Amino acid sequence: MGRQSPLSLVSMEKFVEIRIQLRDILENSTTRMSKIIYWVIHCLIITALVSFTVHTLPELSPTAKQILYLVDLACLCLFSVEYLLRLFAAENRFRFVCSFFGIVDLLAILPYFLTLGLFDMRVLRLLRLLQLFKVARYNKVFKRYYRACLLLRVDLAFFLAVALITVYLAAVGIYHFENLAQPDKFGSIFQSLWWSVVTLTTVGYGDVFPITTGGKVFTFVLLIIGLGLVSVPAGLVASALGEAREIEKVEEKGKPEYGETHEQ
Amino acid sequence: MGRQSPLSLVSMEKFVEIRIQLRDILENSTTRMSKIIYWVIHCLIITALVSFTVHTLPELSPTAKQILYLVDLACLCLFSVEYLLRLFAAENRFRFVCSFFGIVDLLAILPYFLTLGLFDMRVLRLLRLLQLFKVARYNKVFKRYYRACLLLRVDLAFFLAVALITVYLAAVGIYHFENLAQPDKFGSIFQSLWWSVVTLTTVGYGDVFPITTGGKVFTFVLLIIGLGLVSVPAGLVASALGEAREIEKVEEKGKPEYGETHEQ
Amino acid sequence: MGRQSPLSLVSMEKFVEIRIQLRDILENSTTRMSKIIYWVIHCLIITALVSFTVHTLPELSPTAKQILYLVDLACLCLFSVEYLLRLFAAENRFRFVCSFFGIVDLLAILPYFLTLGLFDMRVLRLLRLLQLFKVARYNKVFKRYYRACLLLRVDLAFFLAVALITVYLAAVGIYHFENLAQPDKFGSIFQSLWWSVVTLTTVGYGDVFPITTGGKVFTFVLLIIGLGLVSVPAGLVASALGEAREIEKVEEKGKPEYGETHEQ
Amino acid sequence: MGRQSPLSLVSMEKFVEIRIQLRDILENSTTRMSKIIYWVIHCLIITALVSFTVHTLPELSPTAKQILYLVDLACLCLFSVEYLLRLFAAENRFRFVCSFFGIVDLLAILPYFLTLGLFDMRVLRLLRLLQLFKVARYNKVFKRYYRACLLLRVDLAFFLAVALITVYLAAVGIYHFENLAQPDKFGSIFQSLWWSVVTLTTVGYGDVFPITTGGKVFTFVLLIIGLGLVSVPAGLVASALGEAREIEKVEEKGKPEYGETHEQ
Repeated sequence: MGRQSPLSLVSMEKFVEIRIQLRDILENSTTRMSKIIYWVIHCLIITALVSFTVHTLPELSPTAKQILYLVDLACLCLFSVEYLLRLFAAENRFRFVCSFFGIVDLLAILPYFLTLGLFDMRVLRLLRLLQLFKVARYNKVFKRYYRACLLLRVDLAFFLAVALITVYLAAVGIYHFENLAQPDKFGSIFQSLWWSVVTLTTVGYGDVFPITTGGKVFTFVLLIIGLGLVSVPAGLVASALGEAREIEKVEEKGKPEYGETHEQ
Repeated sequence: MGRQSPLSLVSMEKFVEIRIQLRDILENSTTRMSKIIYWVIHCLIITALVSFTVHTLPELSPTAKQILYLVDLACLCLFSVEYLLRLFAAENRFRFVCSFFGIVDLLAILPYFLTLGLFDMRVLRLLRLLQLFKVARYNKVFKRYYRACLLLRVDLAFFLAVALITVYLAAVGIYHFENLAQPDKFGSIFQSLWWSVVTLTTVGYGDVFPITTGGKVFTFVLLIIGLGLVSVPAGLVASALGEAREIEKVEEKGKPEYGETHEQ
Repeated sequence: MGRQSPLSLVSMEKFVEIRIQLRDILENSTTRMSKIIYWVIHCLIITALVSFTVHTLPELSPTAKQILYLVDLACLCLFSVEYLLRLFAAENRFRFVCSFFGIVDLLAILPYFLTLGLFDMRVLRLLRLLQLFKVARYNKVFKRYYRACLLLRVDLAFFLAVALITVYLAAVGIYHFENLAQPDKFGSIFQSLWWSVVTLTTVGYGDVFPITTGGKVFTFVLLIIGLGLVSVPAGLVASALGEAREIEKVEEKGKPEYGETHEQ
Repeated sequence: MGRQSPLSLVSMEKFVEIRIQLRDILENSTTRMSKIIYWVIHCLIITALVSFTVHTLPELSPTAKQILYLVDLACLCLFSVEYLLRLFAAENRFRFVCSFFGIVDLLAILPYFLTLGLFDMRVLRLLRLLQLFKVARYNKVFKRYYRACLLLRVDLAFFLAVALITVYLAAVGIYHFENLAQPDKFGSIFQSLWWSVVTLTTVGYGDVFPITTGGKVFTFVLLIIGLGLVSVPAGLVASALGEAREIEKVEEKGKPEYGETHEQ
C-alpha cells in the first residue's frame, strides 16, 4: 500500500473525508461530478471496444494501427487509475478485490501487465470485453434479473437438461435415418448434433437437412414437439420476473428511506 | 392567418360555433359525418401508400406513371386541406403544431413544397409513410402500449444492452474460430456481427455459417443459451401489459363519465 | 322434407321421442352409442383427408385411383346421411342450417352435387377440409379460445396493423439499400416485401438477403427491434387466456348443474 | 430370488435393517454415501452416452473399438448391479418393476441379454438413452412439469390439433400454387408438408421455397397469421406453471414436516 503514503501525511480526519467524498463520486450518481465520471467511464469502455473491433479489419494502414495502439494505451492507463481510485475509496478493500466487479476491473487491466512480450495478446484481450458488464453495476434491473435467475435456478437447470437431451436424441434419430443417404453430412452423431441444434433452435442455415423420407418424417414430428419446448423458458422467465418484482416491492416498503439513486 | 379573413366577417359567435363543430367532426367519431371523414382519410393514406409502392415497379408504362403522378397530387391536396382544417379547428393552435401528430401531418405534406426541382424526392417520400401511424391516434390500445413501454423503459433498455453485448461477444467468438478457415466471410468483427445477428435472431439465411469444429461447438453453446435470451422480452411485455391494463381499469373506475368514443 | 314422410306415420309421441334420442346420440357423448358415432365421424374425416392427400401423388396406378374414387364416394354418402340426421334431430332446424357448423357440414358435401361435370372439382375440394374444424365442436377449449380472441379483438387488430406496417417499412428500407446492388431480387417494393416477411418472421430461407453494407446494417437494427415485436402476441395471448379461464370459473360456479359432458 | 439366499441366513432383523439402509442410500441423498452413489450413477450414464456417440465416428482404430467395447461392458455390469440392488431394497418389489423408472432401468440393461448374436444391436441401443431421464427422478421440478402437463392436457391436445391442421392446410395451399412451377419440389401434398412444417416452425432451411407470386402472397399471409399460433403454447405453459406452483405451495403448507431432500 505504498501508493497511499503521500496521503497518510494528511491528518486522519481529512483522509477519511476524502475517501468518503471519492466513494460518493464513484459509487453514487447524485452529484454533477459523479455523473460526469459515470459517462466518462462508459465512453472509455465503448472506445476500447471500438478500438478492439477496428483492429480486426484486414486492411489497416500503419498510421491507423499506430492510432489504435495509442487509444489502447490511453484506455489502459485510465482504467488502471480508476481501479486504484476504487481500491483506495472502498470501505472494505479486501471485499472489493474479491467482489465480482472488482475481479472484472482487474482482469480488464491485468492482461497488459502480464503479457509483455510473453505470448500473443489477442486471445487475452477478449477478457477486456467483460468491462461491458460494468454498465450493469449501476442498474436496479440487474438485481431483479439476478433474483429471477436465483428463483429459476432449479427450473433453468432442469430445462437445460431437457433441452440438451432433446438435442442429443434428435441427433441420434437423424443419424439413424440420414447416415447412409448423406455420409458426408451425417457421418457421426457429432456431426448430427450440429444439424440438431441448428434445427431445434429454428435457425435453419440450410447447410445440412434431411433428404430421405424417414428423416423428413422424423424432423416433422420433432419440430411439432420441439416448438413447445422453446416456449417453456418464456413462461418460466415471465413468472419469475413477476415474483422478483413483487419481492422488490415488499422490500422497498420495508425500507422506504433507502434511495435507489443509481438508476438512470 | 390570411385564410381566415373571410371567416372573420362572420359574427364571433358563429365563428366559434363552426370551429367547435369542425373539431367535433375531425376529432370525435360519434356522428355520421365524422365517421365518413375518418374512413376517407384512411383510404387516402392507403391510396398514397399503394401509389408509392407501385412507383417502384421497374417496368411502368408512361400512362401508368402519369396516373400515379395525378393520384399523388390528389393525395397531397387533400392532406393539405385536412392539415389546414385541423389547424383552424384546434383549440390551441401552437400545441397542435408541436404535437406528435401535428408534426407527422406536416411532414407528410411538406416534402412536396420544399423539394420542387431541388433534388430527388424519392428518399423524402419515405417520410410520408409516417402517416400510417395516424391510424393509432384513434385507438385506446395505443395508449396502453405506450404505458406498457413506459413501465418497461428501464427493463427494455437493459435487455437491449444485454442483447447487443451478446451479439457482439458472439461475433468476437466466431471471428476467433472462423477467421482463418473462411477469411472472406469472417474477415473482421464487423463481418462476424452480420453472422451473429442472423444466428441469434434465428433467421439463419445460410449465406454465412461456421465450418470449423471449434466454430460449430461455439455456435452450439451460444444457441442453447441464446434461446433463453429471446424469451426474456416476451415475459417482460406480458407482465407490463397486465400492469397497464390494471392501471387502465383503476382509471376508468375513477372517471366513469369519460367516454372513449374513438375506439372502433 | 319427403324423407320424413315414413316417420310421420308413427304417432306424434314416438316421433318426438326418436328425435330426442337421436339428438342425444349425435350431440352428447355420454352413452356408449354416441361415443361410437363420435369416433366413426372422426375416422371418416381422417379417411377423406388421407384420400384427398394421396390423390395428389404424381404416379398413381389406375387401380389406386379407382379405390380412392370409391373411398371418396363412401365418405360423401356417410357425410350426407349425417347431415340429414342432424337436420332432422335439430331442435330448431333453421338455426342449425345457419349455424357455423351447419354451414361447414353443408359445404363439405355440396361441392359433389353442384359440380357434376360443370368444371374442375379440385379447387372446390379444399372446402371439404373445413370438416377438420368439426372436431372442435366437441371441445370446451374451443370456447375458451374464442372468448380469449374476443377479449383480444382490438389488441390483435392493433398488433396486426403494427406488424404489417413494420413489414412494409422494412421492405421500403431494404429496397432503398439493395435495389441497385441486386436489381433482380429487390427490383420493387413488392419483391422486397417477400424478403421483409421471411426475415421478420425469422424463417430466413436464404433465397434473398442483403449484400451491401447499408442493407446489412439496416437488417441488423431491424432484427434487434423486430425480436420484441414477435414477443408481443405471446404476452397478449397469455393474459387473455388467463382472463378467459377466470370468466369460465365464475360462470361454472354460477350454474353448477350444467354438465360439460363433451369434454373428453 | 436365489440371489437373496445368502442374505436369508442372516437374522430377520438384520436383513430388514440392511434393506432400509440400502433404500436410504439409493433413494435419499442426505448422507455422504448416497451422494457418492448419486454421482457415480450419473457419471456412468454420461460415460455410456459418450461411448455410444463415439461408436458412430466413421474412422475408428481397432484399439479404440476394443476400449469402447470394454467401457460398454463395464456400464452394463454396473447398471445390472444397480437394478438388482434397487429391486432388493424396494419396499414393494412388484410396484418398483412396474413403475416408470423400473421399466426404464430394465430396458437399459435388457437389450444386452436379449440380443446376444441374434440381430444387430445398434437400434436397440437407442433404448439405453432413456437412462438420461433417470436424472429427473431426483427432481422436484419434474413433478411440477408433470402437473402442469396434466393441467394443460386438453389445451395441449387442442393446440396440437390446430397446429397439425394449420400445417396441413398450408401444405394444401402451397401445393395448389407451386405444383406447376416446381413439380419436383411440390410434387404432392406429402412433399408440400415438408415445406409447410419447415416454414411454420420458422426453421426455413431454404431447400424448398415458393417462387410464384401466388405462392409468395400465400406464404406472406400464412406467416403473418402463423406467428400468433407459435405464441399460444408459451401463454399456456406460463399460466399452467403458475397454477402448478401455487398448488405446490398449498400442498407444502398442508404437510410442512415432509422434507424434499432430493432437490440439489
